[in-house]
Parts: sequence; C-alpha cells; structure tokens
Amino acid sequence: MNTAMSTPQLTIDLAALADNWRALDSLTDCETAAVVKANAYGMGAAQAVQTLVKAGARHFFVALAEEGATVRQALGPGPRISVFSGHMPGDHDLIAAHDLTPMLNSIDQMLHHVEALPGHSFGIQLDSGMNRLGMEAAEWAALREIALAQNPVLIMSHLACADEPDHPMNAAQLNNFIEMTADIGVPRSLAATGGILLGSGYHFDLTRPGVGLYGGLPFAQARSVVALDLPIIQIRDIDEGETVGYGNTWYAQRPSRIATVAAGYADGLIRAMGPRAQLFADTARCPVVGRISMDLITADVTDLAQEPQSLSILGPTQTVDDLADAAGTIGYEILTSLGARYQREYLT
Amino acid sequence: MNTAMSTPQLTIDLAALADNWRALDSLTDCETAAVVKANAYGMGAAQAVQTLVKAGARHFFVALAEEGATVRQALGPGPRISVFSGHMPGDHDLIAAHDLTPMLNSIDQMLHHVEALPGHSFGIQLDSGMNRLGMEAAEWAALREIALAQNPVLIMSHLACADEPDHPMNAAQLNNFIEMTADIGVPRSLAATGGILLGSGYHFDLTRPGVGLYGGLPFAQARSVVALDLPIIQIRDIDEGETVGYGNTWYAQRPSRIATVAAGYADGLIRAMGPRAQLFADTARCPVVGRISMDLITADVTDLAQEPQSLSILGPTQTVDDLADAAGTIGYEILTSLGARYQREYLT
Repeated sequence: MNTAMSTPQLTIDLAALADNWRALDSLTDCETAAVVKANAYGMGAAQAVQTLVKAGARHFFVALAEEGATVRQALGPGPRISVFSGHMPGDHDLIAAHDLTPMLNSIDQMLHHVEALPGHSFGIQLDSGMNRLGMEAAEWAALREIALAQNPVLIMSHLACADEPDHPMNAAQLNNFIEMTADIGVPRSLAATGGILLGSGYHFDLTRPGVGLYGGLPFAQARSVVALDLPIIQIRDIDEGETVGYGNTWYAQRPSRIATVAAGYADGLIRAMGPRAQLFADTARCPVVGRISMDLITADVTDLAQEPQSLSILGPTQTVDDLADAAGTIGYEILTSLGARYQREYLT
Repeated sequence: MNTAMSTPQLTIDLAALADNWRALDSLTDCETAAVVKANAYGMGAAQAVQTLVKAGARHFFVALAEEGATVRQALGPGPRISVFSGHMPGDHDLIAAHDLTPMLNSIDQMLHHVEALPGHSFGIQLDSGMNRLGMEAAEWAALREIALAQNPVLIMSHLACADEPDHPMNAAQLNNFIEMTADIGVPRSLAATGGILLGSGYHFDLTRPGVGLYGGLPFAQARSVVALDLPIIQIRDIDEGETVGYGNTWYAQRPSRIATVAAGYADGLIRAMGPRAQLFADTARCPVVGRISMDLITADVTDLAQEPQSLSILGPTQTVDDLADAAGTIGYEILTSLGARYQREYLT
C-alpha cells in the first residue's frame, strides 16, 4: 500500500532546535532567552516554546501581544514573555490577561503603560542607532529617572549590522548602549544571534537568539531544523525545444524528463527563486525549470537513474540559507514564509 | 478610548469578490466556475466560497484534496469541487468522504482512480503545451477510449501565456486542445481569467477564473478586494546622515521623520520590495526606507502634515499589482503571501 501523501511534508526537528539553544547558551556566561516571534520563525510557536522551556529557556520574546497570548497558552504561568512592539493602543487586555512584559519604545508607550497597568512588569527598548524601534537618546535622557523609579525588568536594544562582524556600526551601537545604560542597576540585553557571536562584550545579562535557534546564519554551527519534501504529481518526457511553464521562459536544450511537484509560491517558495533553485533526489540536483507557479514547481529529472516519489527542497543538502541565495533573500525570510498547506511532522 | 489595534488589519471586500465573479461571468455564454485554491488566494476559502455560491457559482477548483475537504465543509453537499492535482496516492479517503472530483493528469492517476473509486466522478486534465500538469497528447491518444467509457465530467487544459494576449502560444494551445478533444461529447474548459479575456473561442463550456475574482490583473476592470493597514508603533525624528534599519542601507538626506509600522516579511510583505515600496497616509506617499524587517517596516513620513495612527500598503491607492511591481513579482504572489498575523475583517 502506498502511504505517500499528496501534500508537501515539512519536518521540524525539535531536538535540533533544543541543541541549537544549548549551543548558543554555552557561548555566554549570562541568561539565554529565545525569540519565538512570527510563529517561532514559522516552526510553530507552541511546539517551539515547549521544547525550549525543557531545554532551559525561561524568557521568550515575541513581536506582538497577540503572539504573546499564544505563547502563554502553550507555556502556562511562569516563564517571562516579552513583547518587542511594547504596549500599543488596544493591547491592555492581552498584556494583563496573559502576564506579558512589554518592551516600551517611547514616552507615549511609557505613559500609557503606567497609567493603564500600574505596577505591571515592563522593560525598556532603547534605540542605539538603528532608528527602527526604541527610545532615542534624548527621549531616554528626559524619561530615565521616572522610568527607573517604576522598576523596569530589562533594558534592551538591537543591533543593525550584527550579521557583519567587521561592520563599524556594531561598536558604535555598543558604545551608545553602554553610555545610555551605565550604572543603571537593571538587567541589560543587546545581543540576538549575531550579537552573541560578536563576543562577550555584547552579552550583558541576557541574550535573545532567534534565527540561530532555527538553523540559520549567522550561526554557522547550527543544526538544520527544517526539512521539506515535495511530492511528485507526474513526470513527463519532452522533446528538445519544448517549453515548460508560464510565459515559456524555459525550453529544453535536449530531450528531457520533467517532474511536476505539488508546491509553489503560495506555499512560501518565493517565486523569485525560479531561475536559480534546485530540488534534490537525495543528493542529486534537479534544477527547477520554468517559472514557479502558485501550487506547482517543475524540475528537470532527466539525469536521475530512478523515478523518486518526492523531491527535497530543504534539508541537510540544501539549507535555508542556500535556498535564500537562490531567491535573492536571507534565510530568515525562507523560514517565515513556510506555508500553511504543509503536513507538519515534529521530530523529538 | 483608543480602539486602534496593535495588529495590522486586512479588510476583505466580499461584495467586490461577488461583483468580480459576476463581471467575469457576464463576459461569456458558458458556465463560470471559481478557483479557490491556496485558501482562495489568501482571502479565506470558507468566506470566499460562501460568497461565490450566493453569487451563482456551482463549481469550485482547488489544488489539493485537503483544500477540497475544507471547501466542502464550508459549502455542504451540492456544488462540484474539482482538484487540479488529480488523484494522488493517499487522497482516496478525502476524495470519497468529501465528494471531490479529481482532474486526472496521467495514465497512472487514471488507473489508480478507477481501481480505487470505481464510478466516482472525475475529470481529465490535458497538457496542451505548458508541460506542467495533465496528459500528453500521446498518452491521451492511448487512453482516450478507455477514459471516455468511464464518463468523465470535464476535460480541461491550462494556458501558459494567457496574460499576454498577443503571445502565439495562446493560439497554439487552443489548436492543440481542439485537436485533442474534437467530437468528444464531454464538457470542456480551457480558460482561467486570462483566457476569458482572450475571447469566446477560448471559453468552451466552462471557465475557471481565479486571480480576477480577487482583484488582480489581467482583469483590469476588477474591483479591489483587499485593503491592508499597518499600525504605527512610533515615529522618530532623525538628523541628516543618520541610517535606518538593518545593514545601514538607507541614510537621511535631510532631517527626517521616520514611522515604524508593525508588519514585515513574516506577514508576507516580500523583503525584496523594500527599496521601491510605498506606504500611504490616505493618498500621500510615504516611501519605505531601509530594509524590511521580519515584523517591522520603516517609512519616511516627513512630509505629512499630521501624524496618522496607521499607514496603508494595499487598497484603492496601491493595488496588489502596484505592490507586485515594487517587489518584482506578480499580484498573485502578493495575494497568496498575505500573512497569518493580520486581523481579518470581511465586508459583505
């Protein structure tokens, strides 16, 4: 009996996720949190946080209060769940009900939080130069004494160029962060995955790894967490000169065998990767031919000795960063784009 | 009391969806089905099919059997639900339980279907030149008499270049389809949205519009179905020469005001659009500055007279095809990438 399924299979290795957390934790002498925003970078927030809490994580970060509510439901009471976007209008009920800790980004958010939820835990996000999220130096100088009197649980900032160790922005942001937080008596955090790898000067009291947990660069030693196999719908023989796919963008330069697999850009396999992407039968390369369709991809399987039932697009042979190169993007986007139609299997 | 929410708001105009179906239906004298694969191009399959069945659609197409099951649960018994990927190994139970009609793509699928579900409805997909999905001419010639004896309910094919009306591939595929199906006595279908616009010679007995229903090209007369508003987390003033975002890719050429909004590539706002995308405050353009982050986008709001609470990225001012141009892709991918974190509101 054939047990192959008609839907692509996404396999998520939770043991590798836990190993990656422990490996990043071992690089520092401080506390190691875990960033689980965007549904744990597409891996599934509930499964990820339950794995990470067993590995030893006690502090989780999300982007939005709604995500924090999901994580709290998976974790139960106890671990701290912090929200990068801070305390936004309308977040009051979620923050209170799920014991979330907003990272306040502005004087407006600070005033709003203290008025709406006096005594409720909060942290402060400072902007040390990225100009994206957090209080500016002048804003912080004006607010600092008032804010510290309210007992923030964490002061944090975020690096703009940590994936490039030699970028002068790293030292500049480090200096700004130290200047803004000297002698402050509150736990501090600056480093995500890239910052951990920059060395102990960037670690402070808590690190916040994200992409490295999920097997992505810049943590080159990460274990691969995700594998994605795409079932073949059919294989056809075509003559030299025949075209394949939308817009007739590819034609066969020799008699060819073309496999059509059941996944496409609606599954997060970014359309732009078409001309450079490869599928794999074990370690044998099968170049994508023609445009990636919404639900279908065509690949050249002419050189395979046997007809497989599926082809791999992510796994040990082709990492999220390899596929990102083909798509002209970064591994982070490959991970967070992984689609809703996959059958998900978790390895523990 | 401030009722603004901290999550982006995706508004889906179901009345516009129904209008688009009726408008496409009015262009032909044959039956008009509706393609609702990929969660109705990201709009929500259940809401879409319930709207379209009220508008008059009686035949729905999905990519995978799993999607067909979802659509059947939303529709109940009656309307036909056809599956483009055909009858794949493992699909037996779903096809039987949810009364799905597979479009068989190969001799293998035909033999498997007739053996596994004798008497169960099916259609046949022919490949008329796209070399992606469906039986080849030679395969079909060998199978034709056997297949017709099993009473297929539809014979279909798909056009590779219908979005380019002058492309010679259109007439070539039309001729192939006519040759393969002459005097066949079974309802035939060749046209999706683009094919409808190619004229009555392409319409046959049933059309299968997809993207045009959801407001995308090539149906230029489509009503816009989707609007997406992104809440502002904070606005900051920066000096001339300061950088914004990851990698320091943008710097201010004048003193600037920068708004940070709560959405990013994890929400399907494709990272590649960064250098060319615009957000809007009503009709005022706010260029995206710096790289698009996973959960955040920064935009230049220096020239706005007032501080808005949110900025629009999709709506009447910027369509899915406008945004696709900025991202170097097609409107289809903008639609199917729309993310899971949005608060979805349906207008009826």
